[in-house]
Amino acid sequence: MMKTIYLDNNATTQVAPEVVEVMLPYFHELYGNPSSMHSFGGQVAGKVREAREKVADLIGASPEEIIFTSCGTESDNTAILSALAAHLEKRHIVTSRVEHPAIKVLCSHLSKKGYRITELPVNGDGLLDMDQYERSLTPDTAVVSLMWANNETGVFFPVEKAAKMARERGILFHSDAVQAVGKIPISMMINDIDMLSLSGHKIHGPKGIGILYVRKGTKFSPFLVGGHQEKNRRGGTENIPSIIGLGKACEVAKLNLSTENTTVRRLRDRLENEILARVPECRINGDRVNRLPNTTNISFGFVEGESILLMMDEYGICASSGSACTSGSLQPSHVLRAMGVPFTMAHGSIRFSLSVYSREEEIDFVIAKIPPIIGRLRELSPFWKPDNQRAMS
Amino acid sequence: MMKTIYLDNNATTQVAPEVVEVMLPYFHELYGNPSSMHSFGGQVAGKVREAREKVADLIGASPEEIIFTSCGTESDNTAILSALAAHLEKRHIVTSRVEHPAIKVLCSHLSKKGYRITELPVNGDGLLDMDQYERSLTPDTAVVSLMWANNETGVFFPVEKAAKMARERGILFHSDAVQAVGKIPISMMINDIDMLSLSGHKIHGPKGIGILYVRKGTKFSPFLVGGHQEKNRRGGTENIPSIIGLGKACEVAKLNLSTENTTVRRLRDRLENEILARVPECRINGDRVNRLPNTTNISFGFVEGESILLMMDEYGICASSGSACTSGSLQPSHVLRAMGVPFTMAHGSIRFSLSVYSREEEIDFVIAKIPPIIGRLRELSPFWKPDNQRAMS
Repeated sequence: MMKTIYLDNNATTQVAPEVVEVMLPYFHELYGNPSSMHSFGGQVAGKVREAREKVADLIGASPEEIIFTSCGTESDNTAILSALAAHLEKRHIVTSRVEHPAIKVLCSHLSKKGYRITELPVNGDGLLDMDQYERSLTPDTAVVSLMWANNETGVFFPVEKAAKMARERGILFHSDAVQAVGKIPISMMINDIDMLSLSGHKIHGPKGIGILYVRKGTKFSPFLVGGHQEKNRRGGTENIPSIIGLGKACEVAKLNLSTENTTVRRLRDRLENEILARVPECRINGDRVNRLPNTTNISFGFVEGESILLMMDEYGICASSGSACTSGSLQPSHVLRAMGVPFTMAHGSIRFSLSVYSREEEIDFVIAKIPPIIGRLRELSPFWKPDNQRAMS
Repeated sequence: MMKTIYLDNNATTQVAPEVVEVMLPYFHELYGNPSSMHSFGGQVAGKVREAREKVADLIGASPEEIIFTSCGTESDNTAILSALAAHLEKRHIVTSRVEHPAIKVLCSHLSKKGYRITELPVNGDGLLDMDQYERSLTPDTAVVSLMWANNETGVFFPVEKAAKMARERGILFHSDAVQAVGKIPISMMINDIDMLSLSGHKIHGPKGIGILYVRKGTKFSPFLVGGHQEKNRRGGTENIPSIIGLGKACEVAKLNLSTENTTVRRLRDRLENEILARVPECRINGDRVNRLPNTTNISFGFVEGESILLMMDEYGICASSGSACTSGSLQPSHVLRAMGVPFTMAHGSIRFSLSVYSREEEIDFVIAKIPPIIGRLRELSPFWKPDNQRAMS
């Protein structure tokens, strides 16, 4: 079997072996319901508490500020709807053009229900204009939702600064930090963000589990209602194995934070620099400084992203064109369009996203394979002419 | 270590070993995102399809009528809110007094938003008055939600008949079948139910996964919005291991259906009959004919359910007083109150819920332990007098 070189960690990650290990006993040995009144069920309640503490620890929060949800999408949906319920008289939402569909599609639904949505533009590097942001905040603004790091380019928004500005105006601030958590240090103790979304499967935890951080004192309305679970903040029997797995994943992520910012960053930079050096007519999308250490988004002119993926696939190399959550569509990514990346360049974009499991020799292999793949595809392209390069450079 | 005798299967079940086995490879070997465009991610899409077919097969549905959710609560919430969105002009909901909190609490929230809720009463056996049901249906009724089997007593509602009556009036019908699926045969092909909720962890599948069945042609509005997953009907990265596990659990449940209705029923009946014969002043709550084969709800006069649980716990016997989703409160169960069970009897109620893993010798053990436990507690009770029994019988 061909070895898989998995460079699609912003789509999903492998569950760390130590995470699977701590989950296993809770499937068919300690399978009790923590709400039950017998000690068999009760004993798992303590494990849930420990997991909550580990999650809180990774993001510098208090355990009671952590609500377990089923995924980042649920956390995002919950945050926005809760903020709107807290200020029923306010009908304005500020967000950006490059948010995850969990925010973007929800806002589009809300706009049909009479909410006014400001989708802030980004510049060519994927950065926000903070003056424009400030001007967008009005007395009618109920909530701001800005992602901490973009899933496609890795570019950071200055969410801590933006949250401070919102706080000064009495506006709730939510951040989708699904891509940022575990890759950069985050401490909710030293910022003004009211709500934060995190997803298990982006940080080597299981799929089907996420959290919503809700700052103590923030008015909160539940999204899923039913039983008394999560202190009446999220109904539904607790997903015990996944909660315990997420706790472990957060513990591991904390230990790996420095690796993300040394080894992973170095490998990403090498991949990026070598491709830039070896392949003509390609460019990096997004600001190269204010960016996650594991992500690079590269546009190759005169080729289709899908064709590149297909040819990489033959070598077992996994990456993305656009984001996994919007793929399947032939539209170029909404993120690259918002950045004004020319249509042809956006169409030929590939996101490589590394993890702490990425190995030097894997990166070497990709560096060796990409130039001939692009060369071959360009030979087949009616748009690529031998003098393109000279004409455009 | 003391052996656990687990008779709390309506709260949650152990994950079947064969279910855990099929889940394992999807944590850290085949961990791809099915939305990805590489074959590593794509190969799990086929497994999701197979799982969907197995779920559909258990309830006589088509695979495209199955939406994977994170739990029964999410399915219940989604069904009601979708039905209301489909008929914005209709402001009336019909349900019962004994529904799960996922319906009950949601309806209570909706009543504050201007919806009119009819909570149908039940009689002393937990049964509905179908004439009263019929009279409750009005041109303003958007949706009916009635559970297939009650979680605390196991009593069935005639949901197929009720759905037919709703259909004739153009009213959407939802059933929370979380307790019924896997215990009795269900075929959506031969009934008029529009939406049906199912939960993985009640049928020896994993926690954190459920489904909402939505009949083909039913107008549907998603609850979680975001990515294109589940054909735009439920955003969020698919919980692959749990989806695959749920598929297997449904396959196993189908094979075990006859065991539920022979072995499990016989064990339950024996437990119930022996306790009735050996313990004075106790009664079965709920109709003994129209009932799940695995559940018995027994009230012991002059004792507290919590004390019984505590003493059973010392022998490793797990059961419930009230339901897991409402426990932690000192109120007697809303289900028993709705049935008019006298306060003192409701307070001393215990639900035993068996499964295909329940063994004859376990039931023998419980039958042997219960009479002395009740006897001892009554000796300590200020309300129990030696002549109570004579006076009341």
